[in-house]
Amino acid sequence: MKKLRQVTVIGLGLLGSSVTLTISRNSSGVKTAGYSHRAETRRRARRLGVADVIFDDIRRSVADADIVILATPICTFEDTFKTIGPALKKGCIVTDVGSTKLLPHKWAKKTLPKYVNYVGSHPIAGSEQRGVEFGRDDLFDGAACIITKDISTNLSAVQTLKKFWSSLGCRVSEMSPQQHDEILGNVSHLPHALAAAMLNASDLKQLKFCGKGFMDTSRIASGPANIWADIFHTNSANICKGIDGTIKELVKLKKAAKLKNKRQIEKLLEQAREKRARLIEYKVSKKEIQ
Amino acid sequence: MKKLRQVTVIGLGLLGSSVTLTISRNSSGVKTAGYSHRAETRRRARRLGVADVIFDDIRRSVADADIVILATPICTFEDTFKTIGPALKKGCIVTDVGSTKLLPHKWAKKTLPKYVNYVGSHPIAGSEQRGVEFGRDDLFDGAACIITKDISTNLSAVQTLKKFWSSLGCRVSEMSPQQHDEILGNVSHLPHALAAAMLNASDLKQLKFCGKGFMDTSRIASGPANIWADIFHTNSANICKGIDGTIKELVKLKKAAKLKNKRQIEKLLEQAREKRARLIEYKVSKKEIQ
Repeated sequence: MKKLRQVTVIGLGLLGSSVTLTISRNSSGVKTAGYSHRAETRRRARRLGVADVIFDDIRRSVADADIVILATPICTFEDTFKTIGPALKKGCIVTDVGSTKLLPHKWAKKTLPKYVNYVGSHPIAGSEQRGVEFGRDDLFDGAACIITKDISTNLSAVQTLKKFWSSLGCRVSEMSPQQHDEILGNVSHLPHALAAAMLNASDLKQLKFCGKGFMDTSRIASGPANIWADIFHTNSANICKGIDGTIKELVKLKKAAKLKNKRQIEKLLEQAREKRARLIEYKVSKKEIQ
Repeated sequence: MKKLRQVTVIGLGLLGSSVTLTISRNSSGVKTAGYSHRAETRRRARRLGVADVIFDDIRRSVADADIVILATPICTFEDTFKTIGPALKKGCIVTDVGSTKLLPHKWAKKTLPKYVNYVGSHPIAGSEQRGVEFGRDDLFDGAACIITKDISTNLSAVQTLKKFWSSLGCRVSEMSPQQHDEILGNVSHLPHALAAAMLNASDLKQLKFCGKGFMDTSRIASGPANIWADIFHTNSANICKGIDGTIKELVKLKKAAKLKNKRQIEKLLEQAREKRARLIEYKVSKKEIQ
């Protein structure tokens, strides 16, 4: 691709609108286009000015795009690929911001025309909030972004996308979709499962006495259930494995507590504390946190 | 008690020093005294001026106190009660800021002189930080504080303590030590177990890719392992029960994920999201969060 002229984002929630807003912030001359299947979201997106142009027709929205980014729930991707496929121009890069990557790669291979290039993207940014109103032009500042590729991925498209996400403020790394789904299953999807299970096991009357600890530990469970159901659905094997591993550690802690083995309890808690201290050290060194 | 003249805090970590600092902020004329068994902590406490006087001798520190507050790890309480008992004046109120209450009540009954009054206190405030340097005079602003009493507790001492914690900014409620330990087991100790188990089950190399979600979910696991080992040790039955309940919910989620039953996954995640939304509503109504 000689010069990036237009980026189209499909799905104008927190992530999608943050992509177009950040491109605009850069004043790079790249045109931003947006589409949402909801008329109400399109209306609000226009009012908020999150993109240069908001299309009512998904095919028209992608016709002139150099990069098309899907920012809708993962399980819509296959149908969207089918819908936009015929409208894409030759050499167009199709990507997405979904939290699992193996199935999107598979669907793209199956349904997109051969003359466009699919590459997976996963900017690790966001919050438990949703909706175009929460779009921000600094959401990607310093965020990690994983680009996924397999043996059939066009490497020049990978380079273009790396440059693109870097220009939005991301620290970009590359891996296979398999590796991505395994890692994210453990560091993102599993915490969501734990937060949800903890809430489901709890009694609202008792929770009224909770402090900041519970609120923080459970925060991600406020994320949209439909988005997360798609993530669990498309990364089920890794999530099940992660749940098993955590249950094993919970049982260890339970055994130590049951036996009132203070030395063993403290050892297990110290092991966790120590690991998190090393994690914080790393994150500070990468300026991800202060 | 006619007039509160002196409060002595034993243990000058984050919580202990925050108690004396908050009393001083109120300019109520109440003298604050502190003791730590570590010379280095006493030196730093004097330098930081966290109390009117820092004693080198624990018995002398409590001799003139109207209220004595233990702010050391729970499993030290029994010995401390034995040590300070003979030095306490008649009618003195002894309390603590420990996170479990059943055993402290039992130890107090067994070891404190009959002419002093033990009442349990649990101000639900703090953070994963530790040490006298982190003491703050606003730590208790708006925090819940649970006062625990059983059939033998002196009710006038309960009233004095309620007034005391309220003057520090707490919203005070009362319950039995049994009820306290059950509730806190679920809303505070259980999240700690989950955070620690999640970290122990995880791979530091993978964690480097984690986002804000994992950091928040795991935050409390950075708390001091010795303090938390005492909590697990003294509330083991409730914690074990809470772990069992959460494992049950994790298995439900796992089953739904394994079967790729998207409707069931979404139902479970939505149930958690909804419960947290109601919790947030409550916390906002009580001005605990904004």
